[in-house]
Amino acid sequence: MSEAKAQISPGVADLLGVLAYSELSAFDRLAEDSRTAPNVAGRAALATMAAAEIGHYQMLEQHLAGHGVAVEVAMKPFVGHIDAFQNSTAPKSWLESLVKAYVVDNLAADLYRELSQVLDEEARQLVLTVLGETGHSAFAEREVAAAIEADAKQRDRLALWGRRLLGEALTHAQYIVAERDGLAELIVRGSGDLSGIAALFRRLQQGHTKRMQVLGLG
Amino acid sequence: MSEAKAQISPGVADLLGVLAYSELSAFDRLAEDSRTAPNVAGRAALATMAAAEIGHYQMLEQHLAGHGVAVEVAMKPFVGHIDAFQNSTAPKSWLESLVKAYVVDNLAADLYRELSQVLDEEARQLVLTVLGETGHSAFAEREVAAAIEADAKQRDRLALWGRRLLGEALTHAQYIVAERDGLAELIVRGSGDLSGIAALFRRLQQGHTKRMQVLGLG
Repeated sequence: MSEAKAQISPGVADLLGVLAYSELSAFDRLAEDSRTAPNVAGRAALATMAAAEIGHYQMLEQHLAGHGVAVEVAMKPFVGHIDAFQNSTAPKSWLESLVKAYVVDNLAADLYRELSQVLDEEARQLVLTVLGETGHSAFAEREVAAAIEADAKQRDRLALWGRRLLGEALTHAQYIVAERDGLAELIVRGSGDLSGIAALFRRLQQGHTKRMQVLGLG
Repeated sequence: MSEAKAQISPGVADLLGVLAYSELSAFDRLAEDSRTAPNVAGRAALATMAAAEIGHYQMLEQHLAGHGVAVEVAMKPFVGHIDAFQNSTAPKSWLESLVKAYVVDNLAADLYRELSQVLDEEARQLVLTVLGETGHSAFAEREVAAAIEADAKQRDRLALWGRRLLGEALTHAQYIVAERDGLAELIVRGSGDLSGIAALFRRLQQGHTKRMQVLGLG
């Protein structure tokens, strides 16, 4: 656009990189899951969620490029872990897909919202925009509520699935942070100290618990 | 938004319906094909094309809803034929995916652009916007050109593939028109008479031939 912008720190490049690959990976998952929709409305709903992720991906790509960082390079360290997370939590049904989309997107949103506090104003606004735009939760809530209403077994199975998603997500998030010094520093800075990290993870779990209740799976 | 709008004719509902399902189906194909990309840049490029299709789908859905037509209802008559087309032309490689994306999107754009001439101003603007926005052709052109430059066998194989895509697309388009009276009337109105339809199909073939030359496959 205009002059070259200030360089961004390795921690910020990491944060935007992991967010960008999360979006690309979520696109992939949602697009694949949209094929298992029981009707064309559900298919279009998941496809629309997938498309929104790509819109965010492009915003992150542009921001990184504006600071001289290629999005491919920023994403690279995180491809293995995020792919592993997706593979370990491949949904086996339409309802599992919906619960996963709902749970993981919101969990990621909570995490990035916390971390955005340590970013400069421009990057923070970008992250908040990227996170704020989906708003497709109502669809998942409605569909899941209708499905479990008269089926306690289904309900129990999906509640278990939600707990597994939380466990896998936190495990992989911890792997990623342990490997990336810049990212770890950013989180420590944002959360105060190492006990702050523990508190952050507790807040993420509490947010998850509330969401499972909203879905009728708490 | 405001008052109820004028009803749209069955032919127009058909045209917007087949366009909407084409977009949803193209999303699906591009998202699936993006997985076979040789690198993350190619993957993001196809994912971005897929996301654009959903943007168009949403515009069509809104327009139809504004005229009291549910998009699911408008699309329904065309699901079988378009799925059959996609199944009969499933790409077997990354380059076949790119050629298909390029050839089919442009062929569809030519067809809808011709048909848009018989629509009222609002619907015509919608169709032209939906068609004009992709502009991802440059990526396909560059990738295909690089791949066939030093590989005559690859070139011949992809040229054959391009011809097959044209044949399948026109065959399925003819099936669809033959089954839908309103759509057939719309096309006759737009192209003058039955000989006008033949001329329309000739123009589509000429456009295709030119594009194959641009790709280096003519």
